[in-house]
Amino acid sequence: MNYILKDENAVYYECGFSCDNEIFLKLGNEAFFFTDARYLTEAKEFIKNTQVILMDRRDPFKAVRDCIRKSGIKALVYNPAEWSVDEFANLSSKLHINFKKSLNFSQKKRIIKSEVELDILREAATLGAKAFDNFAKYIRESGFRLSEKRLFNEAENIFKNYGELELSFSPIVALDENAAKPHALPSDKILKKDMLLLLDAGVKYKRYCSDRTRTANADENMVLDKNAKFEDKLKQKVYDTLLKAQEASIKKARAGVKASDIDKAGREVIEKAGFGKYFIHSTGHGVGLDIHELPVIGARSRDVIEENMVFTIEPGIYLPNKFGVRIEDTVIVKSNSVEVIG
Amino acid sequence: MNYILKDENAVYYECGFSCDNEIFLKLGNEAFFFTDARYLTEAKEFIKNTQVILMDRRDPFKAVRDCIRKSGIKALVYNPAEWSVDEFANLSSKLHINFKKSLNFSQKKRIIKSEVELDILREAATLGAKAFDNFAKYIRESGFRLSEKRLFNEAENIFKNYGELELSFSPIVALDENAAKPHALPSDKILKKDMLLLLDAGVKYKRYCSDRTRTANADENMVLDKNAKFEDKLKQKVYDTLLKAQEASIKKARAGVKASDIDKAGREVIEKAGFGKYFIHSTGHGVGLDIHELPVIGARSRDVIEENMVFTIEPGIYLPNKFGVRIEDTVIVKSNSVEVIG
Repeated sequence: MNYILKDENAVYYECGFSCDNEIFLKLGNEAFFFTDARYLTEAKEFIKNTQVILMDRRDPFKAVRDCIRKSGIKALVYNPAEWSVDEFANLSSKLHINFKKSLNFSQKKRIIKSEVELDILREAATLGAKAFDNFAKYIRESGFRLSEKRLFNEAENIFKNYGELELSFSPIVALDENAAKPHALPSDKILKKDMLLLLDAGVKYKRYCSDRTRTANADENMVLDKNAKFEDKLKQKVYDTLLKAQEASIKKARAGVKASDIDKAGREVIEKAGFGKYFIHSTGHGVGLDIHELPVIGARSRDVIEENMVFTIEPGIYLPNKFGVRIEDTVIVKSNSVEVIG
Repeated sequence: MNYILKDENAVYYECGFSCDNEIFLKLGNEAFFFTDARYLTEAKEFIKNTQVILMDRRDPFKAVRDCIRKSGIKALVYNPAEWSVDEFANLSSKLHINFKKSLNFSQKKRIIKSEVELDILREAATLGAKAFDNFAKYIRESGFRLSEKRLFNEAENIFKNYGELELSFSPIVALDENAAKPHALPSDKILKKDMLLLLDAGVKYKRYCSDRTRTANADENMVLDKNAKFEDKLKQKVYDTLLKAQEASIKKARAGVKASDIDKAGREVIEKAGFGKYFIHSTGHGVGLDIHELPVIGARSRDVIEENMVFTIEPGIYLPNKFGVRIEDTVIVKSNSVEVIG
């Protein structure tokens, strides 16, 4: 298959290098990496078995078109989500070949992780878990008087280890009713003792992402494990239901099952407890170089789970204007179970 | 003109609201805002004179297509840089109208700022300038032993005012030879006294960006103004040349001149001093809701400057493996001069 890639993580997966302006071309057994003058030296140093070619910044795709033309190929696969209409028009202009759309074909290639990738993902999860502990310590010592915005800023510092690591995504730190929004933005709301605190965050290690969520009662003893004890009875009831649901989905997950059945196992627990309509998203998503990859773990997913897939299991219950709870782990699929890594 | 927009800042400019999943449609005198269930309530609350319509998450563009079909319009303008090939195929499927490409037409509309926008941009610049002072203080008290990564992390904290503001872009903090790369990434390099330090950073106020760069000698007296005094003679010579060049471009800038002449005025100073080949980028870019807007201030730009345009003037000289200097201000164009705001 001849194909062309532009997404940074997709290109990194092919050749072990990427920058913020590049195109990767695979034509039969030959591979080509196009970039501009800023990155040429580094690209030549790091990339093996691939020709590194300079792009002219005035007409960046000219070198790519020339290379395609010279090769004499008749068809080229591309991901229509990776290219803007403008870029694609530029790339394909005056090229008389068949451009074949294949949505997210790189993510499909990456859905089963290698042993090397699994070890990197385990290490990312370990670093992420350590940051959860550090954030819990920060809250215990905070005096319960900081705003969500300030907590968010410190979560970023802690997860980045003050400049050493990159984030998988912008952390979500939400208190009580703000936690009822699955994608809450930090507000001026002040943390008080015994508020519910939700933290969804992750770090990158060797470019691979960790992803985890914990919900807890904010107090001097707070730890961000799964054994949260709430002062409020409704919070505790919802939390206990959700934890059972998450455990049911984890128990269901293994090679050979349908992704939709993993979703169903947890959703049934939540529905039986009467909170079904408050679980408003799917159960999880693949994790790797991208924070959201394949497979999709949801009711309408057609994915079938295989060994060495990596994904999150993260049901949530959101009571509008009251509070929300979510518990999330990242898991590696084994033949008869999953390994919970984060 | 009937048009469709998807970019957040472009949509915000039209209706004073945006979120991370939306489409804005302007059909004659009528305006429509499409979003999903997460943002519907807020959108209805904030947006005036525009119909807010729910998108189905399974087929988000269906409501948009229905609205276009019902209107009976024959042609619709869109920005081909805003839509992926996949999204545009989805939007335009089964719609028998003429989609007209117009690259960055929203930015063209936004090129002249209103008095309200100018006041917001001045306030953004003031907040940004204060953060430069705070960062200089941090360096003076740092003990000269922190890594670039750590300095970068603290620059983020200071410019975000610990969670209160958003950044215009990820700050650039670069020392000595790392400053020779116009888009340096922070490294493990340790700050030592009398190193050259380059800081390029900005904040957002009411969604409008500030943008400024200063270069200085890192020591106990460091301030991030334009009167940098270097221990090293070559650094001082290059810096003095650059400052003269920046002043020449600022002096040239006013309503009625060509953008290319603003670039030329500074470039000539640098060329005369023998550093021409080390000024490897254009002189500046428009600033507004986007950090990079129109006009383009460069040798090949065809833009003609008008009153109330806002852009940066930021020449740089980069000596590979030695050091780089850049001085950047944001300016508002007046009839006979510019107002330097940051």
